[in-house]
Amino acid sequence: MKVAVLGATGMVGRTFVRLLEGHPWFRVEKLVASERSAGRPYGEVVEDSPDEFRGLEIVSLGEFLEDPGVDLVFNALPASLSREVEEKLAEEIPVFTNARAHRYDEDVPILVPEVNPDHLGLVEVQRERRGWEGFIVTNPNCSTAVLTVSLAPLREFGIRRVHVATMQAVSGAGFSGLPALAVHDNVIPFISGEEWKIENESRKILGRIKGGKIEPAPFEVSAIATRVPVLHGHTEAVFVELARGSVEDVREAFESFDPLGRLGLPSYEKPLIYTEVPQPRLHRDRGRGLTVAVGRLEKSGRVFKYVVTGHNLVRGAAGGSLLNAELAVKLGYI
Amino acid sequence: MKVAVLGATGMVGRTFVRLLEGHPWFRVEKLVASERSAGRPYGEVVEDSPDEFRGLEIVSLGEFLEDPGVDLVFNALPASLSREVEEKLAEEIPVFTNARAHRYDEDVPILVPEVNPDHLGLVEVQRERRGWEGFIVTNPNCSTAVLTVSLAPLREFGIRRVHVATMQAVSGAGFSGLPALAVHDNVIPFISGEEWKIENESRKILGRIKGGKIEPAPFEVSAIATRVPVLHGHTEAVFVELARGSVEDVREAFESFDPLGRLGLPSYEKPLIYTEVPQPRLHRDRGRGLTVAVGRLEKSGRVFKYVVTGHNLVRGAAGGSLLNAELAVKLGYI
Amino acid sequence: MKVAVLGATGMVGRTFVRLLEGHPWFRVEKLVASERSAGRPYGEVVEDSPDEFRGLEIVSLGEFLEDPGVDLVFNALPASLSREVEEKLAEEIPVFTNARAHRYDEDVPILVPEVNPDHLGLVEVQRERRGWEGFIVTNPNCSTAVLTVSLAPLREFGIRRVHVATMQAVSGAGFSGLPALAVHDNVIPFISGEEWKIENESRKILGRIKGGKIEPAPFEVSAIATRVPVLHGHTEAVFVELARGSVEDVREAFESFDPLGRLGLPSYEKPLIYTEVPQPRLHRDRGRGLTVAVGRLEKSGRVFKYVVTGHNLVRGAAGGSLLNAELAVKLGYI
Amino acid sequence: MKVAVLGATGMVGRTFVRLLEGHPWFRVEKLVASERSAGRPYGEVVEDSPDEFRGLEIVSLGEFLEDPGVDLVFNALPASLSREVEEKLAEEIPVFTNARAHRYDEDVPILVPEVNPDHLGLVEVQRERRGWEGFIVTNPNCSTAVLTVSLAPLREFGIRRVHVATMQAVSGAGFSGLPALAVHDNVIPFISGEEWKIENESRKILGRIKGGKIEPAPFEVSAIATRVPVLHGHTEAVFVELARGSVEDVREAFESFDPLGRLGLPSYEKPLIYTEVPQPRLHRDRGRGLTVAVGRLEKSGRVFKYVVTGHNLVRGAAGGSLLNAELAVKLGYI
Repeated sequence: MKVAVLGATGMVGRTFVRLLEGHPWFRVEKLVASERSAGRPYGEVVEDSPDEFRGLEIVSLGEFLEDPGVDLVFNALPASLSREVEEKLAEEIPVFTNARAHRYDEDVPILVPEVNPDHLGLVEVQRERRGWEGFIVTNPNCSTAVLTVSLAPLREFGIRRVHVATMQAVSGAGFSGLPALAVHDNVIPFISGEEWKIENESRKILGRIKGGKIEPAPFEVSAIATRVPVLHGHTEAVFVELARGSVEDVREAFESFDPLGRLGLPSYEKPLIYTEVPQPRLHRDRGRGLTVAVGRLEKSGRVFKYVVTGHNLVRGAAGGSLLNAELAVKLGYI
Repeated sequence: MKVAVLGATGMVGRTFVRLLEGHPWFRVEKLVASERSAGRPYGEVVEDSPDEFRGLEIVSLGEFLEDPGVDLVFNALPASLSREVEEKLAEEIPVFTNARAHRYDEDVPILVPEVNPDHLGLVEVQRERRGWEGFIVTNPNCSTAVLTVSLAPLREFGIRRVHVATMQAVSGAGFSGLPALAVHDNVIPFISGEEWKIENESRKILGRIKGGKIEPAPFEVSAIATRVPVLHGHTEAVFVELARGSVEDVREAFESFDPLGRLGLPSYEKPLIYTEVPQPRLHRDRGRGLTVAVGRLEKSGRVFKYVVTGHNLVRGAAGGSLLNAELAVKLGYI
Repeated sequence: MKVAVLGATGMVGRTFVRLLEGHPWFRVEKLVASERSAGRPYGEVVEDSPDEFRGLEIVSLGEFLEDPGVDLVFNALPASLSREVEEKLAEEIPVFTNARAHRYDEDVPILVPEVNPDHLGLVEVQRERRGWEGFIVTNPNCSTAVLTVSLAPLREFGIRRVHVATMQAVSGAGFSGLPALAVHDNVIPFISGEEWKIENESRKILGRIKGGKIEPAPFEVSAIATRVPVLHGHTEAVFVELARGSVEDVREAFESFDPLGRLGLPSYEKPLIYTEVPQPRLHRDRGRGLTVAVGRLEKSGRVFKYVVTGHNLVRGAAGGSLLNAELAVKLGYI
Repeated sequence: MKVAVLGATGMVGRTFVRLLEGHPWFRVEKLVASERSAGRPYGEVVEDSPDEFRGLEIVSLGEFLEDPGVDLVFNALPASLSREVEEKLAEEIPVFTNARAHRYDEDVPILVPEVNPDHLGLVEVQRERRGWEGFIVTNPNCSTAVLTVSLAPLREFGIRRVHVATMQAVSGAGFSGLPALAVHDNVIPFISGEEWKIENESRKILGRIKGGKIEPAPFEVSAIATRVPVLHGHTEAVFVELARGSVEDVREAFESFDPLGRLGLPSYEKPLIYTEVPQPRLHRDRGRGLTVAVGRLEKSGRVFKYVVTGHNLVRGAAGGSLLNAELAVKLGYI
């Protein structure tokens, strides 16, 4: 299948391109970026481009939209551009997007294959309601992705409440998103919109489909988001109240969590490992960046606490979106 | 009054010395350290010594214990040495200590003057029970100090539960406590014993005296402690369930918190400021390191969340202990 | 004397304001910034403003130029705005500027009081040639300032050649000048225009006045400039070939260097200390930021090598400029 | 061929093990470490061990020496242990060592295959003089390795003098070699013994064999070594005086440098790339860590300046040593 990557020169776009190198199902046909980069070979703009794409000439967004000529699209454009572009493309082509533009639409899933694969069914609702050939599937915000993968195995114990404090890497802010002088030797407990996203996206992802739309999970999620001087890898300190279960039960649930192992998705990795002290620099590349590391599990009363860390650009963005596309192909939606 | 600093060459000891420079009530008579440093001028061992103490000859612990000759002692020795040394000294002299050796003794207060000044009364129990002329007053672990200063103004709203995730500075681990390779570009969610200390010391400090001993506060405190690549300043993300009160009430309580303003303690500073985005590099030196910065206050249901940051070596160690001594003098215990 | 600070909200402007707090000769009358900040109290724009200036209302550049009403001006505006503004102001008022706009003019000195105080005489040439009441005095680029203070004591040994590699702090790039993602866990051996400045400004500063203009020093200066993950403090590795002198001679020259000690300038500090291992975090605040630390001196053949570190915003910018103004007052040019 | 790695759990040892995974010529037979680790599976001690060696039981040094049973040895033990161990082993087996113990012996080469492959001939002198079956081949100190690879292509232009300032990564100090508090937000211009090593090892490596021993290169090398807050990758600012050649000539020499391309050594990579702004975080993994990046080349008079960066644990340690062994096999010394 021929695919295009939109916003291919940004941090998330580059990660898409890297992960698509040598992909058995998807062949990168077009790398799409702004006018400024259009016409130049990809390897000239992105110094550490995979060799496979170094010579591929970048296409401008305008030119691409006139004649996409691909079977599916990965979108890493900024949210401001994405709403219109995605809707236009979805008339004909499936769109897998990291942008938040459509995440909160009633008929658009925020998909994490290991957590809510059934939400993919919403694309039928989209197609019917909007009269599209294609569809839009979003992946969550980066810290939400890491959090929900760790919460998924806990659903069986009855999640009642979640408090989470994040320690997020600088690459989550984009290449120029954060001045060195701001975060050097510092922790910045403010990331615009992030806490709202974690609180609401998590509840949508962990919700259930009912009558063609999603009913958010009924428990409270409360988040404090901070930025720390780490390159890649979001770390999260989680307090979760569970209705039942012991530390041993929960640890066993973490360790055995492998919901899609049998599907044979090319990019799939065991989504979660349990380790004594999860740390972003040591664990962010586990499972080629798709595995989150959980550890420090303890229990006090009905509240369990643990720490989870995962790669924000892979698990939390491009890698998750790629898994979404693989799942859609496997389940016959494409 | 003549004072001695024990462990004067370590991170906390140096902070004691710096804060005692030019103190109106206390004159540093002896700087005590290990045999290795004994006999050398303080300024030779501690390159950035205040000029006042640069020429003062360091005394070995053994020599000091034979003939203390001071009116009170500040102790920054490691816990392993402290139990015995403190008990011997307290027979004659008041000891204000950063070591944890006696923190959990029934008749020893963990004192934060702005939070539990009444606990100082326990020294009478000590004197009576142990037959001492002096006494022992401890200050809490560094992250506990920052946390309890922020919780103190919330007591009036009925604290029901506290979840706290800390992001602690490297200077909290001592000069050689943490290899650069461990924490560089990383978050380490493990600090030995720290979570237990936060959970138990907080409840003791916020508890009440009853029948000559302290009844811990009745609410649960649950902590996840992490180390981040920051030099000084512990930052804490706090979720606290309160029985009553609005965001405005709580913010007003934070802003007006100034419990000892009228006592005229020489080192006293307003213990808490409210600011939009508290950050260790920007706020750790507020109030000469004794003021914590609180911000990001929000409410969801009965759970309030906020962030607090404070200087671990000052508010969380030497500065707090110095305030303890000033309070004891002011209230006539010395 | 009434003074104004232009560009008072930037990194260098803030440093001017901080250093002028409580100054015995200069009273800050106007804080000048862009339209965006104009009309707001300084303390609202600059969170860590000194209390003295917190309430002072910021004046826009346009408004200021219409009626300066001050006796001298400190300029921290960007170079692009500075040429025209400085020339207009200098018609009436002395201007001490950190901008590079006029540094390379034949009749404008790049002044470092401890190094080339005699160059101040050029302002007479300016006044005569340009018909000004005021004048323009520049201070050098930040890394040049640190370097020339360390080279000044070596002139007596006959400097023949200088090779210098700089390791510059992120605050030298301005608040938003450097993305966190660029310099995190990295060294960036490129700072636009920096090497040219070091090479040429050093030779002008160390040159001699002849016939009303400066003859640059006759030796080669060759620089490699890099950016490192340090907040403040530029560190420089220097190889200097000297015609004569031993290690002892040179060290003695470093240690005794105190050229203006008798002038009684209010901001003057001993400009150089010799220490075993100069380090930016440990030494950048020595002498309130005006003292550079030199160390690691060794000799091999006729080449001496040493390391020097100094505060880029103080010694290398606002502090140096303030000293320039004090010298001009002391020597009767104002 | 069966190989052993001595000191397999340290920073350099782990790098040897990682590079030997799946090696076509060498099969890791024994992983040797201290008594403390002996008997445990390698993957238990080294969390991120390659899967291939995870289950391999660590052998104690004492046990190994009794019966090595391998065809060659890679040594990553500390220098203090190495002299005796290496000499004992070399009686029977070739030893490729990162330790400095024998580097300065007259009949032991400091080998960088791309720079001085002919020095390998010294092992015949060793065998003859010492009566050994095996031999000892050392690789240089990490910063010397990076420097000499960049100097090798310049030999044809007549090197007359080298001044180099290094900015070295923290992993060069070993896991616990550097406290976080020392290097955080800092540059430390002191690394014990490093400057002497750079100056003397470079001249030996770039020297010529004459009468069975090495005559050091006749030019002066002068180094200033600093530590910077970077994980991996040593960066070096180089000033080199050349007898002849233009910038274009030198750049062409850098770009075409590929001395062993035809030998077919399994680990060989192009040893040098030329790029605009070489940076440790961006370039340290080029050529699987064996390629150094050179850039910023400029000329002033007869002095050329440039910057080079390379991976200290690979190019500067284990990777270089592995190449040494491959060369020795290829040229028939083993």
